[in-house]
This record gives sequence, structure tokens and C-alpha cells, in this order.
Amino acid sequence: MINLGSSQLKYPNDSIINIQPNQKILEYCSFEDSFIYKKNMLNALNTYFKCELHTSELVITGNIGLVLRMIISSFLPPNSLLLVENPTYYNVVTLIKSIKHELNYEYLNIQKDGIDIDQLETKLLNNKNKQIYLLITPYYHNPTGYTYCDHKLDKINELSKIYPNLTIISDEIYIYHHDVKPLYIKYNNKNIISLLGFSKILFGGIRHSCIISHKDNIISNEVENSNGIISSHDHYFINEYITNFNINDELVYRKKIFDITRTICIQKIKNHLNEYLTIINEEKGYWIWCKLKNHNINTTKLVDYLQQKNIFILNGDLFFFEKQKDKYIRFSSYNDLNIFEYAIKIIKKTLDKMN
Amino acid sequence: MINLGSSQLKYPNDSIINIQPNQKILEYCSFEDSFIYKKNMLNALNTYFKCELHTSELVITGNIGLVLRMIISSFLPPNSLLLVENPTYYNVVTLIKSIKHELNYEYLNIQKDGIDIDQLETKLLNNKNKQIYLLITPYYHNPTGYTYCDHKLDKINELSKIYPNLTIISDEIYIYHHDVKPLYIKYNNKNIISLLGFSKILFGGIRHSCIISHKDNIISNEVENSNGIISSHDHYFINEYITNFNINDELVYRKKIFDITRTICIQKIKNHLNEYLTIINEEKGYWIWCKLKNHNINTTKLVDYLQQKNIFILNGDLFFFEKQKDKYIRFSSYNDLNIFEYAIKIIKKTLDKMN
Repeated sequence: MINLGSSQLKYPNDSIINIQPNQKILEYCSFEDSFIYKKNMLNALNTYFKCELHTSELVITGNIGLVLRMIISSFLPPNSLLLVENPTYYNVVTLIKSIKHELNYEYLNIQKDGIDIDQLETKLLNNKNKQIYLLITPYYHNPTGYTYCDHKLDKINELSKIYPNLTIISDEIYIYHHDVKPLYIKYNNKNIISLLGFSKILFGGIRHSCIISHKDNIISNEVENSNGIISSHDHYFINEYITNFNINDELVYRKKIFDITRTICIQKIKNHLNEYLTIINEEKGYWIWCKLKNHNINTTKLVDYLQQKNIFILNGDLFFFEKQKDKYIRFSSYNDLNIFEYAIKIIKKTLDKMN
Repeated sequence: MINLGSSQLKYPNDSIINIQPNQKILEYCSFEDSFIYKKNMLNALNTYFKCELHTSELVITGNIGLVLRMIISSFLPPNSLLLVENPTYYNVVTLIKSIKHELNYEYLNIQKDGIDIDQLETKLLNNKNKQIYLLITPYYHNPTGYTYCDHKLDKINELSKIYPNLTIISDEIYIYHHDVKPLYIKYNNKNIISLLGFSKILFGGIRHSCIISHKDNIISNEVENSNGIISSHDHYFINEYITNFNINDELVYRKKIFDITRTICIQKIKNHLNEYLTIINEEKGYWIWCKLKNHNINTTKLVDYLQQKNIFILNGDLFFFEKQKDKYIRFSSYNDLNIFEYAIKIIKKTLDKMN
């Protein structure tokens, strides 16, 4: 299978396999070591972001999708309103649509520099009696690749002070690709919950994230204390990793790989698929997003046909809350560039047939 | 810290550390290998339980607490009714109490051979227009250590056929301690969802479980396909483990360790704490549950005092939905028996002072 539906960044480097791990961390529910691990993680975050977070402001948990499920199922009181970007990453769309209990959500359009602030202010004015949760992805928004401008972030921060019923849930999964601080730290704002996908870039396949916020927001202590949702294998490796390796060095190394493969993959798409696709985020972004020139092509069928040929891509429709006239598909870059080119050629053949 | 609040079973054995792993599994979201892993897991389950599950009947996911959160937030339609055992394990109590949206739940009393069936039948008769989800832990119920008798299980299975609005969620985390089949397989019943804590006993610290049920119940395919909630480190180790090791041998080895330490720990509790505690599940169970002879002792305070002395135990109150007159505390057995004895002596001293 050629999987262009997810990142193909390799596991950091082989040296991690040869780490002599602290075997105690592998024991079931080893509280002691889970505390050590948390301390080391806090230390790594404080060093990297030059801040002074306290343990009570940090929860280490599973992947961001899981954190969102926790927030949606446990944090949101009845009659609250969840505001989400449209489009947004498809796990959020799937999660929100899968919720069977009553969940009020509305969406805000994404512009090149962030959500439409006027639209946000209107919604705030119209819902003064509701608890409002605004979910944003300020860096490398997926699917668009947009990054919020400072002005809009400042404005969102201000609004959460003017409207005490507004809580910002900031998904900063790609923060390590930017030289910035998490919004909770940057604004020192009690009403911001920053979600850091600490490991997604650094550690290949780990599904691991950190919630940082004011201790009053860290209401799910039970989850943390019971060590409930973190694999001990993750403890084992990440603990050794953050203790023994330098995050900055690893980032430089990974960004370099990513930038090279992405540039070459974009060139190959242009070479072979120019008549069918326009690349919409050529300069930046974790993904390569393409708009189909002919919006009558059924992208769901395209994805199905390709899957029969063992090529996996994602359909743009998955990222919107409502049907779009325009059609999009998403590729990841691929480490093996010959295999990538082979896949692109098959996509061309398939589009030839469908046209 | 001496942690008597969780199982202290050691990570299976050192050989797993020396496995030469399939590094591809460590890549981010490696679909291909996640399919291989799923196939191997299916194969291991089919061999162990002598059954013929199909991939469409299996979802591999994180820990059971997470699965319950998925079920409660995504499966349960509005106006449905969740029936739970009382007492039950404290993660369930915490989870249900943490849910802020409207969740109708009622509880059924636990008897030595399972829930009160008459009580269940009354609730079924009174709620014919609701979707009813019955959450049971048929083997080694926690906190009581009770195991359901076959007669009650047969009856529950029958009831889910008489009442098509009844779905059984069967948490079978301790099934590998019994020579039985998961309820879904045993009864070949579409209305049963079995949750297998495949790894909790076998693999030390992994928080990993399997949902097995009829494919119509496996509605969360998106979760599985996106590889969303499973750590790749878990893939990496468990895949090698189930491919290279013999589950039965490991179980025999682990049961033996557990039986020995448990018996000695019970003897030490009796020696030192006889004036304060009665052991309520002396013959079986993963935990050692004790009832306080003086029900005026504040167990929450006891737990706090002990924590100041770096000894961690759990308070029985956590396991009930409502306050109980009787007071309980829970211990795990401990591998280092001298340390266990030291902790028990401090518990005695603390109780002496509190009395």
C-alpha cells in the first residue's frame, strides 16, 4: 500500500531503539515513574518554551482526537456552544458528527490569516448566556495550511477577556514548526487551553499530547492520576528521549527532511497532474492540498478507485461540515520519491479514465 | 512511593526488550503495518479462544476507560438509559459523574453471582421505549471480586433477545484468568459488545483493549482506520509479542506470580491489621478488599495521611455511586514482600492514631 493519506516522516532515528530504558516505567500503572515522566516532560517544555509551567498546569494524554473527545464529552455543559473552523481536520468533523447527545456547534469560516473575527463577534453577541468553546488550530491549519496572524490571535485573546463565557481551545499540534509560544503561555490567559502535539512530529508514530492551561481548567486530574490513557511504552520511550536527546537538534533534522521531500513531491505533482489539479498551499503546510480544476469529478469515487490499486489519499469532502461545490484532495509527501512518482502516474491514469 | 493502589505485576519478561522490532510499525500512521498488526491480533484471539472472528468484528483501541468514553459519547442516543453495577470500578464512577451533558444512568446491585436479575427485569419493563445499555463486568468484578454465574449470564443473554432495545456492554478485562470465551463469542449474540483487556495482564503497562462485536456495532470504523488512538509503540511491541510468544505460557507464569504474592500479602494483612479490617475476598480477585470493622473511621482521611507517608492505597468510597455507611479500602499485592509488610505496619500505626 502506498499511503499518501498521512505523514510519512520516519521515526526519529535508530538510536532510540538502542536506548537502555528504565524498565520500571513498563510496569502496569507505575505511579512513581509516571510522576518522574511528567516532571521530565514539564522540564522539557519549560526549557524549550522558556517558561515556568507548574505540574498542576499540565496533563499528559493520548492523541489530540482523544483530548477533544474528553473535552466534548466532559467539559461542555448542556446548552453550551462549540465554535469550530470550517473546514477543519477531518477527525474533528467525524468526532462532532458522531456525538449522539445534543451538541450545539456552529462554524466560522477560515481566511488566510485565521477565522473571520467579525463572524466570531456576532456569535459572541448573540450567545451571551451560553458557555462558548472556540476550537482553533492557529499554526498550519489543516486542511488549508494557513497560520493565524498575530493581530487575530491578539483579538481572540482580548475577546476571551471581554466575554468571560468564552474559552479558547487552541490545538497547537504543529507548534514545533514555528518559533512561537503556546497561546496559553504567550497570553498568560486563564481562558485558553493549549493542546500541544508534543510528539507527533518528534516521535513518529506516538499518539501523545499535552494539555496546558490554568489549573482550574485541568479538571480531569483523575485521568492523569490514574495514568489511564497513556501507554507505558510511550512513557518508556518518550521519557528516555526527552531526558537524553536534544529536541531542537531533532527538529532541525526533521524539518530538513520534510522540506526536501515536500518540494520534490510538489514538483512531481505539477509535472504529471497539471491539467487536473491546482496546488493550493505550495509554500507551506504539512500537507499538499490540491483543488480539482473540474469540479464535476467525484472525489469519493476517485479515492475508492485508487484504493483498489493500493494507493491511499484523502478526500477533501471529509474536512468540511457541509458539501462543497469545489473538490479537493490531499497528499502527504513521501520518503521514497520513486514510489511517490509511481503513485502520481496512477492517479493521472485514473483521472484520464474518469474524465 | 509504595503504590498499593494498582496492580504491581511486572512487565512480562526481559526478553521483550530484546526483540528486534519491525521499525516500520513505529512510523507515524503506518496503515499497512496497522493492518498487519490487526490481522496478527485477530489471529491470536482466534487461536486462543478457538473462534473465527472476522476483521470487521474487531476494533483495537486504547484502555477500557477510553472505550467507555467512546461508547458513552458516541454510541448512546439521547434519552437512552445506561445501567451500571453498583459498586463498580472507580474509573466508571468518575467517568459517568464527569459527563456534563444529559446522561440517564441507573444502577443495579451486585450480588455474589452477578447483578440482581429481578431488578434488571423491572427496569426493562419500565423503559420499553428507551435504548438500554447494560454495562457488566462478568469476571472478577472490581471492587467485589465476584464472578457472574452461568445461569445469570444465560439470563442476561436471553433478556437481550426478548428486549431488542437492550445492548450488553461486557467488560471482560480479566477474561484471561478464566477458561471461558468472551460473551459475544459464547452466545453469538449481535446485542453483546465484548471488551477484552487483552494486554492488561499480559503486557504490564500497556493500556490496550479490543472491542469485539457484530460488525453493525463496530460503527467507529473511522477511529480504527485512522489509527487514531493506539500508540505505535504499542503496535511495535504487541505485534512482535503476539507473533513470537505463546500467550498460554505467559499466562501460566503470571498467574503463578500473582497467586503467590497475593496469598502472602493477605497473610501479612491478617497478622498486622486483624483488629481493624476484615478481608472480604480472601479466595479470589485481582485486588485485596477490606472492610473496616469500625465504620466511623474516615477512610478519605486515612488515604490522605498515608499519602503523606508515601503510601498509596485506594478508598472504597470511590467505587460507589452513593455514600456508603460501611467503609472499605483496597490493596494490591506487592512484589517486594518486605516493602509490603513495612507499608502494612505504617497503616496499623496510622489507624492506631485515628482510633
